[in-house]
Amino acid sequence: MRGQMKFGLNIPTRLVFGSGELKNIASLPLPGKHALIVISGGGSMRRLGYLDTLLDGLRQAGVESTVFDQVQPNPTVDGVERGADCARESHCDFVVGLGGGSTIDTAKAIAVAVAMNAPIWNFVAGGTGGGQPIERALPVVAIPTTAGTGTEIDLWAVISNEATKEKIGFGAPALFPAIAIVDPDLMMSLPPRLTAYQGFDAFFHAAEGYISRAHTPISDLYALEAIRLLYKYLPVAVNDPNNRWARIKVAWASTLAGMVESTSCCTGQHALEHALSAHYPRLPHGAGLIALSQAYFKTFKNDAMKRYMKMAEKMTQQKAARPSDFLDALATMQRECGVADIRLSDWGVTPDDFEALVETATATSQAMLDLDPRFLNREELIQIYSQAYK
Amino acid sequence: MRGQMKFGLNIPTRLVFGSGELKNIASLPLPGKHALIVISGGGSMRRLGYLDTLLDGLRQAGVESTVFDQVQPNPTVDGVERGADCARESHCDFVVGLGGGSTIDTAKAIAVAVAMNAPIWNFVAGGTGGGQPIERALPVVAIPTTAGTGTEIDLWAVISNEATKEKIGFGAPALFPAIAIVDPDLMMSLPPRLTAYQGFDAFFHAAEGYISRAHTPISDLYALEAIRLLYKYLPVAVNDPNNRWARIKVAWASTLAGMVESTSCCTGQHALEHALSAHYPRLPHGAGLIALSQAYFKTFKNDAMKRYMKMAEKMTQQKAARPSDFLDALATMQRECGVADIRLSDWGVTPDDFEALVETATATSQAMLDLDPRFLNREELIQIYSQAYK
Repeated sequence: MRGQMKFGLNIPTRLVFGSGELKNIASLPLPGKHALIVISGGGSMRRLGYLDTLLDGLRQAGVESTVFDQVQPNPTVDGVERGADCARESHCDFVVGLGGGSTIDTAKAIAVAVAMNAPIWNFVAGGTGGGQPIERALPVVAIPTTAGTGTEIDLWAVISNEATKEKIGFGAPALFPAIAIVDPDLMMSLPPRLTAYQGFDAFFHAAEGYISRAHTPISDLYALEAIRLLYKYLPVAVNDPNNRWARIKVAWASTLAGMVESTSCCTGQHALEHALSAHYPRLPHGAGLIALSQAYFKTFKNDAMKRYMKMAEKMTQQKAARPSDFLDALATMQRECGVADIRLSDWGVTPDDFEALVETATATSQAMLDLDPRFLNREELIQIYSQAYK
Repeated sequence: MRGQMKFGLNIPTRLVFGSGELKNIASLPLPGKHALIVISGGGSMRRLGYLDTLLDGLRQAGVESTVFDQVQPNPTVDGVERGADCARESHCDFVVGLGGGSTIDTAKAIAVAVAMNAPIWNFVAGGTGGGQPIERALPVVAIPTTAGTGTEIDLWAVISNEATKEKIGFGAPALFPAIAIVDPDLMMSLPPRLTAYQGFDAFFHAAEGYISRAHTPISDLYALEAIRLLYKYLPVAVNDPNNRWARIKVAWASTLAGMVESTSCCTGQHALEHALSAHYPRLPHGAGLIALSQAYFKTFKNDAMKRYMKMAEKMTQQKAARPSDFLDALATMQRECGVADIRLSDWGVTPDDFEALVETATATSQAMLDLDPRFLNREELIQIYSQAYK
């Protein structure tokens, strides 16, 4: 590596972090005059009062709003097209995503479909996607209500095509939100189980980004800090959901992990999980990752020994002696969060599916598999699913 | 501090880091069609071939160039106005600063003067400056040839008014360079003394930003990494100037310290040094900081104890027992860089000047003094100059 320290850094998103910051939205330089507000179809954004806070703020800023409230848990091509139609009909000039990762990714995808004036699948690179370049997008304001996705400060969106059973991440610099408002107050009501799933999604953004072939000096800095914070505070937030300080730290770690995704990239574990989500839309992304994680990370423990020990040291704050110290720390953290026993069999996956899952993972997400510390062949990928199964 | 973790992050600059990256400038999305290239009047950019490399790259990109080669070591109002005239006459639509901090700050100031179409002193906030808001600037491409300033990735510029004996920093989001090309190859020929002065400028951007009242979770991350890298690699770069790996690490640390300036802010030490530079233009900025540093940091060792120990731990990689461990580590580093004996008396400063220096510092840079861990009164400021004197 000597003499080869070459990398780029460009995260243009304006981050505003802090409890209560959603209320201050009117003080920000909003990127338009008519917002399409994208929220989930579940009704929680209304029930919790977050939508009203947002609408009030936009009104104060003299911005008109149209609400699109039809986002499903795994954002689909159809949902994006409906949202894009809504934005066109209302002449929206920017998009606000208020919710979890699915909602914000839907907002980003709508922003692309409207600005490029074409179906979103044209722009997905991988699988049956059209692979056209994303030259522009409407500006997006991202307001996460979960701590995990990182999409509020990265250039990625993930979308599912129900017809083809594909779930694919796609990205472009135009997909960086203009503004990210990370207000941990919006995360206080998340139940423990979801807090754990989402927190581990953030953890794996950081851990995969740290062992990824695409890692850089700046992504390493973000990743190790996210790993340190999540090991310390995620179990607190899971076991004591009203602990505001833990929620704040987990929210910040999640945003840091999003910055890892903008300066490094996820690896094969995310590719394998996207295939699971595509085939089993009810399996939460974070639960799928947790189920895969011991098998996945064990595979590389001799390929990235120093990095495993460095992660272990950040977690336990003790000198590490061997790479498996990371696996042990990960197991401890999963136990403390009550998610150590998740297996793929709990979600209806059967061994008969493994071949098809590997097929889907390599067809849709080879780019992430290519960033693994070592190339894994088909048998090794099946082996990971198999170990995660029961 | 509990529950008060509120902060922002917005560094829109596109950083390209790596040996040889200047040669690749044509591959970047350059922000205009006609560049004003700003270089120093000393001739080194021509002699070392850097100007030719830049001109070739711009030609390849189909960009026209006009060269303004009249930058002086401390950029002055007059120099900026001449550069702005040159840019206007040539109808330049962006500015490239190739050189040290003075050159890049001149490029930034020209970018403001041209875009706002008014004298630059109108926009300086502090001292006799006009304090008008900087609403826009021509896009700037910053190409540092020294490792210290950090201006390539921050929103600040420092300018001297010879008539009023003022040296003032001013900033605005429009002053973030559009692109920063940090190519450590351009720093290989810096002599040891200058390497040390500039390296300590970077070190103090990080250390002041770390103890500053304006510090944030993200500036802390950048600051501690810059401090760790500079402690380890600056003495290597000073004592073995051809050590490319040390040059690379020092360059990266300097850019990280610039990111500290964009997410936290310098404190009183920089205010006291700017006053020195304004009265003694021959005193290099870094040398002035080094002379002040032991006295300045000693003042706060009981006000920011934990932060002093944390800095010491990053430097020595040992557990710290007391805040003065930081002062000891700083002394070690200055000894190893051959700059432990710099005193203000070496540069013609006399005790008769102390009152006037404090007057200048408070009149032009009170904002930085306000960020000190504890408010220092007039006597304490004089005390710092006095201890740094002999």
